[in-house]
Amino acid sequence: MTVQELNSIIELLTSRPQPENPPPAEMRERFEKLATFLPTPGDARTEAVDAGGVPGEWVSAPGANQDRAVLFLHGGGYVIGSINTHRTLAYNLSKAADARILLIDYRLAPENPFPAAVDDAVAAYKWILGQGFKPGDIAVAGDSAGGGLTMALLLALRDAGVEPPACAVPMSPWVDMEGVGESMAANHDIDPMVQKPGLDRMAGMYLNGADARQPLASPIHADLTGLPPLLIQVGTRETLVDDARRLHRKALADGVQSSLEEAGGMIHVWHLFAPMLSEGREAIDRAGLFIRTRAGA
Amino acid sequence: MTVQELNSIIELLTSRPQPENPPPAEMRERFEKLATFLPTPGDARTEAVDAGGVPGEWVSAPGANQDRAVLFLHGGGYVIGSINTHRTLAYNLSKAADARILLIDYRLAPENPFPAAVDDAVAAYKWILGQGFKPGDIAVAGDSAGGGLTMALLLALRDAGVEPPACAVPMSPWVDMEGVGESMAANHDIDPMVQKPGLDRMAGMYLNGADARQPLASPIHADLTGLPPLLIQVGTRETLVDDARRLHRKALADGVQSSLEEAGGMIHVWHLFAPMLSEGREAIDRAGLFIRTRAGA
Repeated sequence: MTVQELNSIIELLTSRPQPENPPPAEMRERFEKLATFLPTPGDARTEAVDAGGVPGEWVSAPGANQDRAVLFLHGGGYVIGSINTHRTLAYNLSKAADARILLIDYRLAPENPFPAAVDDAVAAYKWILGQGFKPGDIAVAGDSAGGGLTMALLLALRDAGVEPPACAVPMSPWVDMEGVGESMAANHDIDPMVQKPGLDRMAGMYLNGADARQPLASPIHADLTGLPPLLIQVGTRETLVDDARRLHRKALADGVQSSLEEAGGMIHVWHLFAPMLSEGREAIDRAGLFIRTRAGA
Repeated sequence: MTVQELNSIIELLTSRPQPENPPPAEMRERFEKLATFLPTPGDARTEAVDAGGVPGEWVSAPGANQDRAVLFLHGGGYVIGSINTHRTLAYNLSKAADARILLIDYRLAPENPFPAAVDDAVAAYKWILGQGFKPGDIAVAGDSAGGGLTMALLLALRDAGVEPPACAVPMSPWVDMEGVGESMAANHDIDPMVQKPGLDRMAGMYLNGADARQPLASPIHADLTGLPPLLIQVGTRETLVDDARRLHRKALADGVQSSLEEAGGMIHVWHLFAPMLSEGREAIDRAGLFIRTRAGA
């Protein structure tokens, strides 16, 4: 049934005519509405927290190990997305990773451009350490821009001499603000979600004049030496598939343990659609296994 | 959050441009796709059965009482809908009613016009009796056309001298093939799902020349004397709200115990959207309580 499920999702995503350059408020509202169709199971445990000055929420599936933590950085081009849009993904990851998940509402562009998001991710990571977690009990994960932010966080921690988490899972990561990957054109016609003009527009809002090759904004240009093990997941229909491939190759070249999973036929952050898409559940299960094997007891 | 959730649902339902007179196959496919966004929890117990010559499926939530049965007749204008489109609703009703639910793929129009659906509903009810359930352990429920079919089943059983189920729950029932309720025009602008032209078209397919006032097709014209207790649920935004009100009044006039619940602001069969709509969960919970109180031990 996967083909029909995937087609239904694509139809939902593409059915409403999208205005040319919608204002951020409208883009955010649209994403929040999508989240309505990804309801979080009623047995989710949630707890709102102030994560070092950043609004956060712990999300756990019933019985999930509370001594293993995953900092999850949501996607949305650094402009949209929230704790709310990613609560169900966090719940599913909690179950798969046997861990509690910290979602954060890091500051968004254009109101708060680069490096506000990086600063907030660092603050939240340090806050988790302050809650008594050892770095080895923590994983970081994130999707799309949150996957890029995952990499930026690892770089910022390394550069600041803060002990890194046990591992990280960038999902459909966006790690190149210039958008020059080959797949940007090659997958233009088959990616129903992400296209270069929209990415460029959000990159402009996020960078706000900063260098598009600055490593903390475009980790594809970073020296990745010394980073913890990575599991990079991406769908082959994505305009961003080359971001994942290039990140993986760069990680290997820099001596980082990196695994790349290319899920055939999958769309950008298909993990979000785990409630109705078996491949989404499987990808989250693999991410969970990767985390369980590396982080915590 | 209910207003946003309801608006998101309405947007989903109305976003794709609907062709003027789509062929039944296209209408069915559309409904099946909608069901993708109503995934059934993974812990559902399902069992395919031949219910007296009618394809059926028992659906149970974990721990649901297996000695109480609900025959559920799905909606879709007698033309569309299936076991698949209503599995999640059945799961939720199983939980609320503490019962196992039998969904059936009764034959659909235009391939199989009236009274094929009624004949199949009767056959399935008798099959349940043959499985060892006493009439007092059984309830019947159905939504939209399935709510009308619920009434037709009760009438057919009475007229055939078969002992009736303990109670019945028509949800947003369609009980008037002529479509002459006041709300058909009054709610035209606020009902995002059901409009007279579409109803008339499906009525034509179902009736296939039969009298639109024939009681087994339009139970609003039946003598309801002797039927078991009814809980009729309807939303106030529905073009079909008058079908429910008229059915309720007719039931009371004919000496039937009938309760009417008008859910403020709700759309046609909002129960389907229980996964993301709290009012949908509440309506199913009330239906479940009604059934638990009347059917079975």
